[in-house]
Amino acid sequence: MKILKNKTITDVNGIKASGISGGLKKSGKKDFAVIYSEGNPVSSAVFTNNKVKAAPILLSMEHIKNPITKAIIVNSGNANACTGQIGMENAHIMAQTAADELGVKKEEIIVQSTGIIGVQMDMEKIIPAIKKGCSKISTDGGNDAATAMLTTDTFEKKLTVSFEVGGKEITLAGIAKGSGMIHPDMGTMLSSLVTDISISKEMLDLAFKDCVSSSYNMISVDGDTSTNDTAVIIANGLAGNSKIESVDDDFKKFKEVLIYINTELAKLIAKDGEGATKLIEVEVTNAVNLESARKCAKSVIRSSLTKCAFFGEDPNWGRILCAVGYSNAEFDPNKIDISFFSEGERIQIAKDGMGVDFDVEKAKEILLNKEVKVEIDLKDGEHSAIAWGCDLSYDYVRINGEYTT
Amino acid sequence: MKILKNKTITDVNGIKASGISGGLKKSGKKDFAVIYSEGNPVSSAVFTNNKVKAAPILLSMEHIKNPITKAIIVNSGNANACTGQIGMENAHIMAQTAADELGVKKEEIIVQSTGIIGVQMDMEKIIPAIKKGCSKISTDGGNDAATAMLTTDTFEKKLTVSFEVGGKEITLAGIAKGSGMIHPDMGTMLSSLVTDISISKEMLDLAFKDCVSSSYNMISVDGDTSTNDTAVIIANGLAGNSKIESVDDDFKKFKEVLIYINTELAKLIAKDGEGATKLIEVEVTNAVNLESARKCAKSVIRSSLTKCAFFGEDPNWGRILCAVGYSNAEFDPNKIDISFFSEGERIQIAKDGMGVDFDVEKAKEILLNKEVKVEIDLKDGEHSAIAWGCDLSYDYVRINGEYTT
Repeated sequence: MKILKNKTITDVNGIKASGISGGLKKSGKKDFAVIYSEGNPVSSAVFTNNKVKAAPILLSMEHIKNPITKAIIVNSGNANACTGQIGMENAHIMAQTAADELGVKKEEIIVQSTGIIGVQMDMEKIIPAIKKGCSKISTDGGNDAATAMLTTDTFEKKLTVSFEVGGKEITLAGIAKGSGMIHPDMGTMLSSLVTDISISKEMLDLAFKDCVSSSYNMISVDGDTSTNDTAVIIANGLAGNSKIESVDDDFKKFKEVLIYINTELAKLIAKDGEGATKLIEVEVTNAVNLESARKCAKSVIRSSLTKCAFFGEDPNWGRILCAVGYSNAEFDPNKIDISFFSEGERIQIAKDGMGVDFDVEKAKEILLNKEVKVEIDLKDGEHSAIAWGCDLSYDYVRINGEYTT
Repeated sequence: MKILKNKTITDVNGIKASGISGGLKKSGKKDFAVIYSEGNPVSSAVFTNNKVKAAPILLSMEHIKNPITKAIIVNSGNANACTGQIGMENAHIMAQTAADELGVKKEEIIVQSTGIIGVQMDMEKIIPAIKKGCSKISTDGGNDAATAMLTTDTFEKKLTVSFEVGGKEITLAGIAKGSGMIHPDMGTMLSSLVTDISISKEMLDLAFKDCVSSSYNMISVDGDTSTNDTAVIIANGLAGNSKIESVDDDFKKFKEVLIYINTELAKLIAKDGEGATKLIEVEVTNAVNLESARKCAKSVIRSSLTKCAFFGEDPNWGRILCAVGYSNAEFDPNKIDISFFSEGERIQIAKDGMGVDFDVEKAKEILLNKEVKVEIDLKDGEHSAIAWGCDLSYDYVRINGEYTT
């Protein structure tokens, strides 16, 4: 696998995209994106488990069943969530408008929306935006699309990789957005991937859904599971590899790359959590089962007290052990070892569930880094899991206290 | 029932208490309390569900089984949690020291500790503190004891009430502490109640354990369930009522008062959450079952995004509906009504799962008050629940970023 720096979704065969300003954001920043594919692409998606699902989620859950997906349209600035029947009709109109403009069927369109909850979509702005966006798609538009998805994000999340399947070079690219209301359960706040691999819809589904539980579902910014989480992938087959139709070596190779790209995008979302000053990685090892490893890692990454300690660069490991304690995971409290690790330096701070004498100054130095790993060894089994998150800073409070309805 | 203003635990017949400075807190503030009862008091207690339990919790879980409980000793400044075998031995030494000083048996002592996790108790300080505290107990010491429990709390939580059972006046008084690491699951961060009612240990247990699920277990400051949560009550029988030994009218009357006092103490803890600028009450009505009502209320009170919106006095009801959505409660997303209520003013902000046109200025005025209620009507059944919490402010981050190991 090669990482293709400076490449983006439109560097995948057959993909065109655009990102424009449609006036939904008061700031005038880009707020509408189209990702379109040539050919007859198959797709797979995972959506939020929140019982309160946004209108575009309900629509896209239907459309994803269609054998072909030609395009994803994304608007930021309005989530079209908690908008009732009118919101539902608006989501349909949005899909129809894009379909007409692109010359495809309505059910071949996936709609993603992100932004304020509970406000009806401004149709006088979004309709012209859809028309403009669809008319502007090009093989240069990938970066604009990545920008147009963002809300309080501070940078674009994008990654493009290539790998070989059956002698053919396959490209796989994704763009994502995150920032706040990030505690995905099934899907995540908007992640769109495109690839030119040739694969059946069933096999794409199998590969994609499995990835999500170890990538997006393992990040948390604030414990709030959004109404709009969506991760979607479309595969247009234009790379010309022999079509993947079973769990063979080609499938496994593809899935490995898919896990990599989804995990990296998930980490970028965690790193750019609202107000975040650092990326925290929590690795739980030697758990009695996978569920316990995951519960444990997610409990620590979600703990407000632990997150504040990281913001303050305070090696307060007791809060970590406390969060392990209330995680509902299976473990022996008297076996747990904890270390901090960053940039080649490791310091053990707890052993067998108790503190050890450690060099507080060295620990603080490690915590000063922008990416810090917490290693939790349960010494109780053979399963492991990693979760990603960020610290809790004044800026998280500022961003979410000021963000106005 | 009468609320006895300016009365405290030592106004209950037979109760003596003290609160002193033992040097555990660097600030020199009071950090050790004793609550002692004459007679042969029965007791009941609920402890944290966190799997990582502090040494005093493990000790007190044994001691509470004893038919008689003569005293509760409380230290702040060190939680004696994650301190292994040495911590366990220290907890035993603490209980033994108090028992010797008070002339009672070791198993008649309940030990509560709160403060930093993972640091061994400074026995050279705590032993003299226990001796001094036990020698100073008096019928004037109630307020000092309430003060000595506190950590980052900004005010004492105490409440005293009286009521009549079988022609006898009963007094019931409680003191509590909260502030951070507050998301009780079974018990809460240190609450001690005393009463002179005559009741069997079985009946006291029955009444007390039932109360906890609708009071302490319904508050959240930060979603972090502590390693040290304890709520304990002792009843010394000195009021002279005919002993309660079954679920009769006297029992019901006592339980009603007990629910009241525990709920009020729980609300005081929520109000004084770390960095809190206001008390938030979330009332969920017409849920299909009690579990759904509670899940729903607790999910909203825990949501960081909702808490930030309250700090910013922003009527961002979409975040509330989002938190209802991921609560795992049973409900119909298209039936939910939401209103804000405070100081006689009510404003409906959502109806049938959708926003309604509302006067944003009036909503903001309501949110400016120091106590705000969120009313969530699920219109789906007959069960209700209330949860209490606070907003998430810059000060929460400051307190927990600076709090040093």
